[in-house]
Amino acid sequence: MSGVELSFLPVAGVQLATGAAGIRYHGRDDLLVLALAPGSSAAAVFTRNAFCAAPVTLARQHLATTAPRYLLINSGNANAGTGERGLVDAQASCAALAELTGCLSEQILPFSTGVIGEPLPVERLAAALPELLTRLDVSAWSLAARAIMTTDTVPKLVSRQFELNGQTATVTGIAKGAGMICPNMATMLAFIATDATVAPALLQRSLEQAVAGSFNAITIDGDTSTNDSCVLIASGALGNPLIDHAESAEYAALQTAVDAVCLELATAIVRDGEGATKLVTVRVEDAANVAEARQVAYTIAHSPLVKTALFASDPNWGRILAAVGRAGVTDLDIARVQIDLGDVRIVSNGGRSPDYTEAAGAAVMAVAEIVIRVILGRGAATAQVLTCDFSYDYVRINAEYRS
Amino acid sequence: MSGVELSFLPVAGVQLATGAAGIRYHGRDDLLVLALAPGSSAAAVFTRNAFCAAPVTLARQHLATTAPRYLLINSGNANAGTGERGLVDAQASCAALAELTGCLSEQILPFSTGVIGEPLPVERLAAALPELLTRLDVSAWSLAARAIMTTDTVPKLVSRQFELNGQTATVTGIAKGAGMICPNMATMLAFIATDATVAPALLQRSLEQAVAGSFNAITIDGDTSTNDSCVLIASGALGNPLIDHAESAEYAALQTAVDAVCLELATAIVRDGEGATKLVTVRVEDAANVAEARQVAYTIAHSPLVKTALFASDPNWGRILAAVGRAGVTDLDIARVQIDLGDVRIVSNGGRSPDYTEAAGAAVMAVAEIVIRVILGRGAATAQVLTCDFSYDYVRINAEYRS
Repeated sequence: MSGVELSFLPVAGVQLATGAAGIRYHGRDDLLVLALAPGSSAAAVFTRNAFCAAPVTLARQHLATTAPRYLLINSGNANAGTGERGLVDAQASCAALAELTGCLSEQILPFSTGVIGEPLPVERLAAALPELLTRLDVSAWSLAARAIMTTDTVPKLVSRQFELNGQTATVTGIAKGAGMICPNMATMLAFIATDATVAPALLQRSLEQAVAGSFNAITIDGDTSTNDSCVLIASGALGNPLIDHAESAEYAALQTAVDAVCLELATAIVRDGEGATKLVTVRVEDAANVAEARQVAYTIAHSPLVKTALFASDPNWGRILAAVGRAGVTDLDIARVQIDLGDVRIVSNGGRSPDYTEAAGAAVMAVAEIVIRVILGRGAATAQVLTCDFSYDYVRINAEYRS
Repeated sequence: MSGVELSFLPVAGVQLATGAAGIRYHGRDDLLVLALAPGSSAAAVFTRNAFCAAPVTLARQHLATTAPRYLLINSGNANAGTGERGLVDAQASCAALAELTGCLSEQILPFSTGVIGEPLPVERLAAALPELLTRLDVSAWSLAARAIMTTDTVPKLVSRQFELNGQTATVTGIAKGAGMICPNMATMLAFIATDATVAPALLQRSLEQAVAGSFNAITIDGDTSTNDSCVLIASGALGNPLIDHAESAEYAALQTAVDAVCLELATAIVRDGEGATKLVTVRVEDAANVAEARQVAYTIAHSPLVKTALFASDPNWGRILAAVGRAGVTDLDIARVQIDLGDVRIVSNGGRSPDYTEAAGAAVMAVAEIVIRVILGRGAATAQVLTCDFSYDYVRINAEYRS
């Protein structure tokens, strides 16, 4: 774990504390509680994996019942694939925190990340809570970002500010995730808070829009997790007039800040992808529709052959071309397809571009951030996916780590 | 290349010769010609990759025009992603062989495998043909299996015999492929011949059926090649009465033999998958329909997390469960899902099976051939996919090899 101090801005109305419950890891924090001021709104999106984890099921139920007062998060154990017992354990965790804080179980949202299929050690988790609650503080975001890490090598913590009715509002968020990353709703875990006052429906709308362009547009290995959850809190501590109109300048300012925080956190996840040495943007343009553009982008981003070529810094564009060709685009006219690596045109008219040189391709591939641009020549739709390469370390981490 | 002698049965009416054209490799054969007796029938299936290689385009055209007399195959260069020039080069290769043999260019089917995007060195290829043609022989199958290899570590050659009207008929085939293997029609290259006399339409039907259960049900890395081609030749040299009725016992006997040869070749390809240490059968049962069963099977077979766990011999069933959950099955009731690893039930009722022990799971994972069985509890459809694990060597091979 890095000792680097992360810079961030606290969010009034949101207090945090971390603790070491010894759930799986030793000598590090693995438990996080966020305490939300009364009157806070919460929005959330969750994994679409049918085998969603017990805490995902319970958090969904609780959120549908009432506004949350606490988020309870543990790392080291996903409480997924744990059947009926998993649900009982998640409920027991919430009940323990509810009893200590005097709120209802339904006012607590539980989240877990880590190994799948092991029972959650509820007693150890509950035992760590009393001392942890004595340390709730608005300034513990950096500790929080570390407490939720699993195979992550760096904590992910991002802040933005924006002007709201003459005041300065803040959006701060943390995220974790390095493998089993192909979110289909949200990444494994991300928690974002603002001190603005926002109507719940608009908060949900804002989160969904931000997630579509950030956490839902990244992939490390194509494996959508069982535990993906992303929460956006609005504490209202700023005291601004309620944002309740989607066409307002205030909502637009909030959206810009939430978008920026989500995109920066999502980018940090890909950059920290298991074994990753390169950050790769796959951009598909001039598609007939967005679904088709995404399909081509994900086919490239998931191709083990493309990913290993990226690791080798090999401008092996034949593999990109083969991935485009097998992406299932109906009646693709390959003569109209163009492929660029950075600012180098490598494919035009279905074959190698006449101007292309291996040296030019190699120069682009040598850098740490690469843009693959595919122009389909079929329409006006665009999609973009962030991904990383496939290295020896990806295999090592996933052959050694029981996730 | 192994020095082991492969056992096989020659096919009357089919002669072969190999040569070293120095297309990319040095000190080994990289050129193969199959000469077919007059009156031979041919059936073929090709890649569905939109960026199909020039030889695939040309072979399709030639096959639609007339019955082939020669197959011309090179390794080391795929002649894919080569645009208009690729087509000219493939035509020139056929023309060279046509001139030497006195047949029409259209009677030659060209096939290429190897690096994508480099021009085919037609002159070197043509220069090697005259001497090669002096050595055409029915017994060169073993040399042929070696000449078409790229990253393959072993040649793939399979023979079967079957009774036909009191005579013994033979089916012999070769295949190559170790990476970019997720055939969508056929594997990279496979050539199968029988001496039986078979009506062309039935030959095509037989091949398509055999391919569906063999080459089209394997995956190494999910990357469908630009060059996949599979050809079945019936030389008719046996002189049996024409097989022209799909309900006949003769057709059934042929189908059984062709199925067996294709499945054994396809299995050999997976076993020789780049960096593979394990042969894995993913079998999905009780699905609502075959498409759904295939979707779940391929999601598991393509999951980098499942594949690295297989490499580590780690019974990490949570990754299998997560793959099932994200496979996109509508309204999946996870309480009905069961997952077996070999003969060990690991998941039932949406969670770890009560009888499951880590020791039992580890014992199954320790062997070289593993069956993952997923029972969806939704219907009666089944699908099966063969795959392999993901190892350091997969990354090494694909980071080092320009394919």
